[in-house]
Amino acid sequence: MYKTKAYSAASATSPLASDTIARRDPTEHDVQIEILFCGVCHSDLHMVRGEWGGTVYPIVPGHEIVGRVTKVGSAVTKFKSDDLVGVGCMVDSDGTCRHCKDGLEQFCPNLTLTYNSPDKHMEGVTYGGYSDSIVVDERFVLRIPNNLDLAGVAPLLCAGITTYSPLRHWGVTEGKKVGVVGLGGLGHMGVKIAHALGAHVVVFTTSPGKTEDALRLGADEVVVSRNADEMQKHTGSFDFILDTVSADHDINAYLNLLARDGNITLVGAPPKPLEVAAFSLIMGRRSFSGSNIGGIAETQEMLDFCGEHNITADVEVIPIQKVNEAYERLLKSDVKYRFSIDMASLKD
Amino acid sequence: MYKTKAYSAASATSPLASDTIARRDPTEHDVQIEILFCGVCHSDLHMVRGEWGGTVYPIVPGHEIVGRVTKVGSAVTKFKSDDLVGVGCMVDSDGTCRHCKDGLEQFCPNLTLTYNSPDKHMEGVTYGGYSDSIVVDERFVLRIPNNLDLAGVAPLLCAGITTYSPLRHWGVTEGKKVGVVGLGGLGHMGVKIAHALGAHVVVFTTSPGKTEDALRLGADEVVVSRNADEMQKHTGSFDFILDTVSADHDINAYLNLLARDGNITLVGAPPKPLEVAAFSLIMGRRSFSGSNIGGIAETQEMLDFCGEHNITADVEVIPIQKVNEAYERLLKSDVKYRFSIDMASLKD
Repeated sequence: MYKTKAYSAASATSPLASDTIARRDPTEHDVQIEILFCGVCHSDLHMVRGEWGGTVYPIVPGHEIVGRVTKVGSAVTKFKSDDLVGVGCMVDSDGTCRHCKDGLEQFCPNLTLTYNSPDKHMEGVTYGGYSDSIVVDERFVLRIPNNLDLAGVAPLLCAGITTYSPLRHWGVTEGKKVGVVGLGGLGHMGVKIAHALGAHVVVFTTSPGKTEDALRLGADEVVVSRNADEMQKHTGSFDFILDTVSADHDINAYLNLLARDGNITLVGAPPKPLEVAAFSLIMGRRSFSGSNIGGIAETQEMLDFCGEHNITADVEVIPIQKVNEAYERLLKSDVKYRFSIDMASLKD
Repeated sequence: MYKTKAYSAASATSPLASDTIARRDPTEHDVQIEILFCGVCHSDLHMVRGEWGGTVYPIVPGHEIVGRVTKVGSAVTKFKSDDLVGVGCMVDSDGTCRHCKDGLEQFCPNLTLTYNSPDKHMEGVTYGGYSDSIVVDERFVLRIPNNLDLAGVAPLLCAGITTYSPLRHWGVTEGKKVGVVGLGGLGHMGVKIAHALGAHVVVFTTSPGKTEDALRLGADEVVVSRNADEMQKHTGSFDFILDTVSADHDINAYLNLLARDGNITLVGAPPKPLEVAAFSLIMGRRSFSGSNIGGIAETQEMLDFCGEHNITADVEVIPIQKVNEAYERLLKSDVKYRFSIDMASLKD
């Protein structure tokens, strides 16, 4: 066991503040990582403020982790000191269930999340990436391509895989027509990845002001979703739509834009149920799905793909001391498009 | 042009009554059919009573047609006089669109429905199977296996293909766990076909009284859907669920029963939108779809499959003079499980 610096929240109403936490010494299968950058995901905010229930305090959030290996256990084969590595939303799973065997660890019933999950090695819960060091089983550590900006890589570990996985699962390839609903942390990654996959990308946004930026990110067209005429033009034409919106919205308006056998996948989590008209699905054998991050093998595939296509998130780098302010800005969608915490600031 | 007997409704509030209608003489590509049986589909009732809009009066409903060939055009190659044949919901399509080329004529934008569609050959709209004769392009005529009871074959042309198509599309094969929600005209066909495909079939019903019948039809288990404990036992376990319910119902209760990557397909059309909770889809990468009859090639495949497995609908055979009474009973779900009109009665 060793001590390391972190930012934690003591209660649902406390700001995140400097703290010292204990980490296990690396076992034979573990990789010890010096954290360089950690992205700020909206779910960090939900969990810190206890909005989804089940939060154990103090909580150290953060599951978009990029760092450098400082030590490896004797049985570790995939990594060595100084390697650039990443850690996403998961740090362990049972390895024996059907989902693990299929490489879809995210659905394992015995999953250990990067933070706020019962810790198998120590008392209490796991602590996340708002910290200067972490120890993770090598099975849940990812290789980071050497050619990418590390601050922008961090969000790939959650926002990247959350959008890459459904795009791949539903067969997005060159020439497919793909919609991306919402242009935030998830949406801007969806645009970049769908574009790199060779799709014709149409961004749906409620803000006409985002048009220029959407085109810069890789969109071929931008539709202001409040404009019924603009929407109408795309009826029955999409192979796939990635819906990243976490607020209540009219899903039928998008279902009707799908071509025959088209799919719309939800990666946001609107709090209220979405109303689906039967005919929106029946006409055209359309389907409406959800998706949740991706497995470890696919996360590595996504990172390699991003290396090849030179893709990172557009980030605003902040010192950890600004994280509470960043949360307030996140609530106003005032970030283009993800905060990435420079963890060197934790030494200040 | 020739005259033939039929039952038609003169307005949304008129009963169906004896009438004489005109049919075209068979062109070179046409098959003339003496109708032996015609199933009664709930959509007949909706259309006759103008409940879906767009009904042109007089209307002759009926799209579950079985009969015998009386004449074929000079260019007809697939049929000859005396062959047993069927006609379902469609009698023509453009043959050139992507859907037609894919053998999914049901999605053709220029589809001619069996009744109440603009008639390409004559003035007015097409007339359906509550009649003693019909003339149909051979491309939309199906072969009927010789070993089946013809009264019970008629409903295969709509209820049969409506359930067969999604079961096949979503990969139901031996050993899959399949749910069927609702045990009416569609549901009872879904049970028989899923059972014949080798699936483990679970019927969901609100009526405990239907248990024995569900087991007789081929179900392995019956769950009374109002019993939360019984439902709970099946959480996360279904590969596929066929939802045949046309009334408002809680779709999340069934979404939560799906395994990872499971699909629930709606073939009923509840009038009110269904409320879908985002987490029901996101957890397990589940999907929610709709389906609408099937293409001609698949309808033939279904009929051949039913011949091989000796499957017909359970029908109550009625004379055409009882059709108005049958509609009233349909509204009370008082039929096991489909009415089939013996068209010989039209001669009375």
